[in-house]
Amino acid sequence: MQISKTTIVKAQFFDVDSMNVVWHGNYVKYLEIARCELLDEIGYNYENMKKDGFAFPIVKLDIKYVRPVFFADEIEVEARLVDFESFLKISYIIKNHKTKEKISVANTWQIAIDMINKETCTIMPDSFKEAIKKYLKRSSE
Amino acid sequence: MQISKTTIVKAQFFDVDSMNVVWHGNYVKYLEIARCELLDEIGYNYENMKKDGFAFPIVKLDIKYVRPVFFADEIEVEARLVDFESFLKISYIIKNHKTKEKISVANTWQIAIDMINKETCTIMPDSFKEAIKKYLKRSSE
Amino acid sequence: MQISKTTIVKAQFFDVDSMNVVWHGNYVKYLEIARCELLDEIGYNYENMKKDGFAFPIVKLDIKYVRPVFFADEIEVEARLVDFESFLKISYIIKNHKTKEKISVANTWQIAIDMINKETCTIMPDSFKEAIKKYLKRSSE
Amino acid sequence: MQISKTTIVKAQFFDVDSMNVVWHGNYVKYLEIARCELLDEIGYNYENMKKDGFAFPIVKLDIKYVRPVFFADEIEVEARLVDFESFLKISYIIKNHKTKEKISVANTWQIAIDMINKETCTIMPDSFKEAIKKYLKRSSE
Repeated sequence: MQISKTTIVKAQFFDVDSMNVVWHGNYVKYLEIARCELLDEIGYNYENMKKDGFAFPIVKLDIKYVRPVFFADEIEVEARLVDFESFLKISYIIKNHKTKEKISVANTWQIAIDMINKETCTIMPDSFKEAIKKYLKRSSE
Repeated sequence: MQISKTTIVKAQFFDVDSMNVVWHGNYVKYLEIARCELLDEIGYNYENMKKDGFAFPIVKLDIKYVRPVFFADEIEVEARLVDFESFLKISYIIKNHKTKEKISVANTWQIAIDMINKETCTIMPDSFKEAIKKYLKRSSE
Repeated sequence: MQISKTTIVKAQFFDVDSMNVVWHGNYVKYLEIARCELLDEIGYNYENMKKDGFAFPIVKLDIKYVRPVFFADEIEVEARLVDFESFLKISYIIKNHKTKEKISVANTWQIAIDMINKETCTIMPDSFKEAIKKYLKRSSE
Repeated sequence: MQISKTTIVKAQFFDVDSMNVVWHGNYVKYLEIARCELLDEIGYNYENMKKDGFAFPIVKLDIKYVRPVFFADEIEVEARLVDFESFLKISYIIKNHKTKEKISVANTWQIAIDMINKETCTIMPDSFKEAIKKYLKRSSE
């Protein structure tokens, strides 16, 4: 079963560069907005991580830019959980909200860090896996 | 005696908006760069504040925009300590580094917050005033 | 009659600084989001300005910070048109969307620049005033 | 012969997130600062591109995060030209300036777009290749 969440974001004036398109570095913000919404949906967001004593830093990201985004464009960012064994891997497709044309595809990899002993976890924490199970149970009902 | 510090900053591509000038909101970053350099100079920076149990949040800021900044322009930001009684008030003049034309003037006000009991200090902490004294002593030698 | 527009914005992870509150410089982005929504509402946004050959750069801004904003907080930014004679002055009140506590008040001043001859307009362009009239007519119906 | 340029960047307060490390999205800014310095060095920067009627949008980027960057850390970003046939590919190594520990590795791919007919160039423009030749000649003297 696919675990994903689509978030609508509007390109703001301050996102646009002197070529009149959204500056490529701002896509990282769009990914983060969508990722946070996905984690909220699953029921295991940054607050939960913190409370459980974990941090989930990004260790790798890649982005492909297919079409530009213009000022005031509404885009939809679909964040999809594709792996949560040793890494938390999320894949993203960004589309123009109106035309549905593909704008960008991206991936992020996060590892779990145990904040008490500052060690990298070799597998995702049980609390995360538990949240996934509950989410899947809710979704299938 | 005047306590001030001038910092050179280069306008980057990602700072520029679709009107081909530095986006007005990015001036706040330039002020912060200069303010941190000034506090380093005085010998009482964010690290010192933290160790002493204080935070110095900005409670007010104003900026006047006189001339635009273009991509790759070098600007100089002079940060000057103008008050450190109950507020930490710093005034800024931004000039084009080459032409010395005035680009912007700005002011920030910060209060000290005691992070242990989360209370606003009605006067600047002694440790800050002590740092100023030492700085003035060093400077006059 | 009051011309205003309230926009809801959610504080994102990338907006938050190491003091665990939204970095003060990011408020300028929130103001711009609300200002663009207000200008859309009036029917005279950046696209209209551009087509008419005008730019409206910010020449002054001030912000007072009353309460902090935390990660994932929803805030409401009310942008209110208070003057459009020689300046376009917009005043802002930012509140916590849930508690309605005041977070910040701010003001921006913009001048009109005729992009053809690169001259500052001493009064707001007729096209802007016309848009206001139409807006007021629509609103009173 | 290797064409590369190393730029020193200081991590600012506004770059740091609530985990007390530089927010991962800000690395894209560091890459751009270094890339612009490299292109300046070669003698073919954004201004030259524009004058020649070309734009060089980023079409792909990847970043690996090895070690965190902390507030006030000085980092060195080495940008190295690795391909300029059909793509402009630049590779980056970010190190802590003091300890020389590796912080991050990254790659960007840019294509040339002919701004007159809005078409993607299948090979890099002659003017770019000419600049490279001149740079290599200067360097070997």
